[in-house]
Amino acid sequence: MRAAIFRKGDLVADTIPDPVPQAGQVLVKTLACGICGSDLHAFHHADKMVEAAQRSGSSFTMDLKRDIVFGHEFCAEVLDHGPGTEKKHKPGTRVCSMPIAVTLNGEKADMQPVGYSNEMPGGFAEQMVLNEMLLLEVPNGLPTEQAALTEPMAVGWHAVEKARLTDNDIPLVVGCGPVGLAVIAGLKIKNIHPIIAADFSPARRKLAEKMGADIVIDPAAHSPYKRWSDEATPEGYDPKNLMTLLGMGPQLRPGVIFECVGVPGIIQQIFEGATRHARVVVVGVCMEQDRFEPFFGINKELNVQFVLGYTPEEFALTLHHLAEGQIDGAPLVTAKVGVEGVKEAFSELGNPEKHAKILVEPWR
Amino acid sequence: MRAAIFRKGDLVADTIPDPVPQAGQVLVKTLACGICGSDLHAFHHADKMVEAAQRSGSSFTMDLKRDIVFGHEFCAEVLDHGPGTEKKHKPGTRVCSMPIAVTLNGEKADMQPVGYSNEMPGGFAEQMVLNEMLLLEVPNGLPTEQAALTEPMAVGWHAVEKARLTDNDIPLVVGCGPVGLAVIAGLKIKNIHPIIAADFSPARRKLAEKMGADIVIDPAAHSPYKRWSDEATPEGYDPKNLMTLLGMGPQLRPGVIFECVGVPGIIQQIFEGATRHARVVVVGVCMEQDRFEPFFGINKELNVQFVLGYTPEEFALTLHHLAEGQIDGAPLVTAKVGVEGVKEAFSELGNPEKHAKILVEPWR
Repeated sequence: MRAAIFRKGDLVADTIPDPVPQAGQVLVKTLACGICGSDLHAFHHADKMVEAAQRSGSSFTMDLKRDIVFGHEFCAEVLDHGPGTEKKHKPGTRVCSMPIAVTLNGEKADMQPVGYSNEMPGGFAEQMVLNEMLLLEVPNGLPTEQAALTEPMAVGWHAVEKARLTDNDIPLVVGCGPVGLAVIAGLKIKNIHPIIAADFSPARRKLAEKMGADIVIDPAAHSPYKRWSDEATPEGYDPKNLMTLLGMGPQLRPGVIFECVGVPGIIQQIFEGATRHARVVVVGVCMEQDRFEPFFGINKELNVQFVLGYTPEEFALTLHHLAEGQIDGAPLVTAKVGVEGVKEAFSELGNPEKHAKILVEPWR
Repeated sequence: MRAAIFRKGDLVADTIPDPVPQAGQVLVKTLACGICGSDLHAFHHADKMVEAAQRSGSSFTMDLKRDIVFGHEFCAEVLDHGPGTEKKHKPGTRVCSMPIAVTLNGEKADMQPVGYSNEMPGGFAEQMVLNEMLLLEVPNGLPTEQAALTEPMAVGWHAVEKARLTDNDIPLVVGCGPVGLAVIAGLKIKNIHPIIAADFSPARRKLAEKMGADIVIDPAAHSPYKRWSDEATPEGYDPKNLMTLLGMGPQLRPGVIFECVGVPGIIQQIFEGATRHARVVVVGVCMEQDRFEPFFGINKELNVQFVLGYTPEEFALTLHHLAEGQIDGAPLVTAKVGVEGVKEAFSELGNPEKHAKILVEPWR
């Protein structure tokens, strides 16, 4: 089959053997697969990523000397069933799945991340094998390109769930790439307002508004933290008022900041901009060493929740959010390419004015 | 009055003017006042402390060119009442107070931290002025030296309250200085077991046992994180079991790690040692820049709660914990000195084998 292959540090279009479904697995045709920021990171810093994964106990332990096919944000079509399957989904059925391949050996399970594995080619190839038990049929005639957004949108939904939101919270989303946009979509579903979002890119700010942001800020022109803090300040609030100091007068509305950038320095910037008792949800994946001053966190009694991925329930619910129109993912998809176009797409994604999500259609 | 004064970077015993109680304030005689790790930090790094406080919006904004009298962990005796007081406590009454001096101007309040202020001398002086409304009478004939432990013990209790503990949690206390010991005391009151505590010092480990630790670890000999993770592992747990992977089989008991050291590098060490979904409560006050790898937090979905101080309710409850014998603070007090002995005591506190808490008795 044709695939865009990460081979010796480069991305090449080539032919590799068709995958063969094992016990409990289903062979599928990839219909569409999004390119994720983590794919870009893996392309540029694969060695660091593998090293950090090994030290932190992650399952992303690829052998970089061998071929890897990226792609973990996919919608696919059932082609054939492996041994020991229930054949729940007929050939031709469109499905989504968490990008995990489980190989069973009795009750023992070997888990491989589809798209970051030497054994399990991801969605930048014409075919994949997936576990039957993880397949979710695409409902409501949801277009394939939106179904392929289930995975990144589930990341945002999970972050919003982990934020332990209350109706009184004021959210600030720092960074409006696909992760930040997914968080905004989740906040809109939760009906938490005003949703404040910040990004240097005008195109990204427009997308943020489309996804549900009530207030968008260009950090080059205004401080997002100042605006956020203003929104959190009730009328007549006076931090020097005795009753307020004793916790009995008007208080700032609690704030929650979603870090959706994932580069060194952002956490310290948030620590400096946060109001007292704010919660910080770190959704951006920074794989480098970072520096910060704990004293800011201590003095403000901040809470920092690091998040990753989603639960099976959150993934399934996100597919339904898309299918029922609670999330309109269409504006996010800015281009579609075949396997030959993947390398250029990786480069083009560096321009936030031009692109948000590029889908790979390996059958092209 | 006599006082141990922080003057131009040195600690000197000298005479300063007696303080005069303002509206709502009470003049007290300091009976005993503990030396805190923050006092040591302020002594050695006052300029950094003030700079960090200013940048982070803290109220610890002293003028280092003028005299400062440290001391915020005190028990005192009422001497006289200022104007506009209710005279609730007769002269001779022993009292504790949160180390805050509030000066009222109508409904406006100016707050000064007693012991870190040019205006409000702390407990290393013979007399202080305190706010009548914050005074708590020492109950049950609790000895003065134990009542003076209310403040540091309240820090531990607050940290334990902020940890959102469940009965199933396994706590690990990293560092058994006064802060760690206060956390252990709080965990014992909450009846969360086993309480695991780690410190390089044999004397501190003995104190940890006295305060309620069930398991004490010398990190030079064994990994506290390994032992903690072993305790969290249920019989028959297998991370490769499919049901466990799907969240339906036996799971690790949730863990909460209390960082009670407060030096750079500890947070990263905890990130490396923590189990998935652990909560980290940062009680140690690190005032320097720190480095860490966010990827560890992300990959394990850690939660980090920074804490500082306590609420008025927590402070009052802690005094009752001491008075009712739920905390026996006696073993913590390892020496008592007069104002002339403060400077040497600051130096002696560097030896964890010899000292935990030294009390200053300025009337000596």
